[in-house]
Amino acid sequence: MKIKVSRRAHFNAAHRLYKADWSFEKNDAVFGKCNNPNFHGHNYELIVSVTGEIDKETGYVIDMKELKDIIKSEVEEAFDHKNLNVDVPEFKTLNPTAENIAVVIYNKIKPHIEQDLELEITLYETPRNFVTYCGG
Amino acid sequence: MKIKVSRRAHFNAAHRLYKADWSFEKNDAVFGKCNNPNFHGHNYELIVSVTGEIDKETGYVIDMKELKDIIKSEVEEAFDHKNLNVDVPEFKTLNPTAENIAVVIYNKIKPHIEQDLELEITLYETPRNFVTYCGG
Amino acid sequence: MKIKVSRRAHFNAAHRLYKADWSFEKNDAVFGKCNNPNFHGHNYELIVSVTGEIDKETGYVIDMKELKDIIKSEVEEAFDHKNLNVDVPEFKTLNPTAENIAVVIYNKIKPHIEQDLELEITLYETPRNFVTYCGG
Amino acid sequence: MKIKVSRRAHFNAAHRLYKADWSFEKNDAVFGKCNNPNFHGHNYELIVSVTGEIDKETGYVIDMKELKDIIKSEVEEAFDHKNLNVDVPEFKTLNPTAENIAVVIYNKIKPHIEQDLELEITLYETPRNFVTYCGG
Amino acid sequence: MKIKVSRRAHFNAAHRLYKADWSFEKNDAVFGKCNNPNFHGHNYELIVSVTGEIDKETGYVIDMKELKDIIKSEVEEAFDHKNLNVDVPEFKTLNPTAENIAVVIYNKIKPHIEQDLELEITLYETPRNFVTYCGG
Amino acid sequence: MKIKVSRRAHFNAAHRLYKADWSFEKNDAVFGKCNNPNFHGHNYELIVSVTGEIDKETGYVIDMKELKDIIKSEVEEAFDHKNLNVDVPEFKTLNPTAENIAVVIYNKIKPHIEQDLELEITLYETPRNFVTYCGG
Repeated sequence: MKIKVSRRAHFNAAHRLYKADWSFEKNDAVFGKCNNPNFHGHNYELIVSVTGEIDKETGYVIDMKELKDIIKSEVEEAFDHKNLNVDVPEFKTLNPTAENIAVVIYNKIKPHIEQDLELEITLYETPRNFVTYCGG
Repeated sequence: MKIKVSRRAHFNAAHRLYKADWSFEKNDAVFGKCNNPNFHGHNYELIVSVTGEIDKETGYVIDMKELKDIIKSEVEEAFDHKNLNVDVPEFKTLNPTAENIAVVIYNKIKPHIEQDLELEITLYETPRNFVTYCGG
Repeated sequence: MKIKVSRRAHFNAAHRLYKADWSFEKNDAVFGKCNNPNFHGHNYELIVSVTGEIDKETGYVIDMKELKDIIKSEVEEAFDHKNLNVDVPEFKTLNPTAENIAVVIYNKIKPHIEQDLELEITLYETPRNFVTYCGG
Repeated sequence: MKIKVSRRAHFNAAHRLYKADWSFEKNDAVFGKCNNPNFHGHNYELIVSVTGEIDKETGYVIDMKELKDIIKSEVEEAFDHKNLNVDVPEFKTLNPTAENIAVVIYNKIKPHIEQDLELEITLYETPRNFVTYCGG
Repeated sequence: MKIKVSRRAHFNAAHRLYKADWSFEKNDAVFGKCNNPNFHGHNYELIVSVTGEIDKETGYVIDMKELKDIIKSEVEEAFDHKNLNVDVPEFKTLNPTAENIAVVIYNKIKPHIEQDLELEITLYETPRNFVTYCGG
Repeated sequence: MKIKVSRRAHFNAAHRLYKADWSFEKNDAVFGKCNNPNFHGHNYELIVSVTGEIDKETGYVIDMKELKDIIKSEVEEAFDHKNLNVDVPEFKTLNPTAENIAVVIYNKIKPHIEQDLELEITLYETPRNFVTYCGG
């Protein structure tokens, strides 16, 4: 009897989309306004979902306070009020598209939850653009 | 050609998270503020989703008015403005976590829809915490 | 490593739910207020989701600007500020229920995205009623 | 000690913006897509706000159930699933812009609340366009 | 040059609407389902707004972190996961309607902000019912 | 008979809060995480409200298409996907707090609407922090 539990969080960050080994012109053609060398930014809204059996004793799949703490230490403290390209090691050489950010968040959270729990990350870059990743 | 149709509803209720055969100290350690013996409460937002074939005659999977009536009689009339622990028989001995409430709602609605339709319950305890259950 | 990317759009339209070869009484019994011969209408909110591999070069599954343009030409220009029953060829003989509109949108967008990408359509007829279709 | 209490409601309707004594060309120039002779439509979201003293006995400005009933009989039953231009007498000769609909709703509700209460109507034509009227 | 700045917060609580010196029948007639002696509950969403001059040095009316801390100590710690009637001194003899809760919150926050700043409290009892109070 | 009409828009931008003639330590003490020299960012949601008489001919206070175009040229083209501190002349010497951005937007839009119309700007820096300015 599996059930999915979800927790919402958020962080604000600056970023720039570009590929370092492309010319500015090529970056501009592919990434348009998102290639502004001075950066732009977003309020990222994050939903972390964990699927597993309900514990008969507690009635929980996972203690939400525990999940909230994992999100805080792994995502909020690492990304909030940061420049993703400059301040966050994972994006030194990885383009911080919503897709790549979601994969990085998945990889950061996965080791902190029990192995038999499934993990899904939904990341809203804006209320109109979002991505969902569950480990490929 | 299967499609999922969803209907949103809501109910307001009080609850307390605890296990009757645990000490207050153990309940406090596990459930924290949610173990307040005087109860706290939520505006529960509910999404009931039904998946099946589109009826060629009507263009419906299920008549939404029918689904709305099932939700009204099985969920809203049973849970709305109630104390889940005290007023609702299902939670006399079952801890009313969001997970357990979603399973109870699933089990109450399932017998009222046709057998070949799949059912999914999403229950928001708050805008930040929610669960999704589709029968395990 | 597959990921789902989603784009939100919207259109406003009038419609009437009825079956031309049924009597008014039968349409009234089945479709109720939605059978008003003078039409009623909705702000349809649309989420178009595309699932595929992340391109290693761009970090994109699909360029959102490209997806936005497909939605604009295939859905917004065809449906926005229209009477679905009268102005939109697909619904001359097909009842414009949320289910059928979602299938039509799926079929209009599918040929415009690469074949190995999966497509999912979520259509909100109101904030309380919505459908999700991914090709059956 | 005055306080404002607000109640949210909604109705779905078709409409067309035009002025009967203008040419189609002039209507088209002024109202654009909203002048579609076959109509389009909206999910109107309505907020009715009433300002007054808190009753010392009840702790209410107005009983929300009473306000809900007034909205139901005066607005929802009159406008929901209707064609505003064709089915609603007030708009036979009045252009159903969001502005005019809000004024009509104000005038329909005002006689049903006590004279010393102030009334304010907020009407969302879409999540992006809305109007607020408090009696001029 | 005055401007209003607003901060959103939230708390979950149980409550019962009734007047101790009325009969159960009278309470039932006036407060209906809200008079459940076993309590029901809500996710209260709170908006605290402060209006004043923009400080030329900082560009702030008030430091949002300071306002956030006042809301935390005066409202969240006092009301969150509480039974308003039983656990909160202010409601021992005051009916915890949305109106009265908003006034209590106003009176608790006002002494903590500078005297020349105006204060406004908006309290959502549900997404459909809310009140706004600015000191009468 | 005055009525307020509102239009929602949005832009994404990077910014840093600091005062150039203060030490880093003082900026850090006052602006905290918002003083990150590498910038952070937001999805700004904007509501532009215009209050005036309803035109008897059109039923409009102002043509929403016209207001939408003013917002596009004055705000979206100037601020969207920009670094407010670096790319936007108004913030070269003005700290881009939500308060100051709202005042700048007010001053940019005001000359483009008729003189007898009142203007109000609501700017959401995040869903939890927002400001409202109507000309002081």
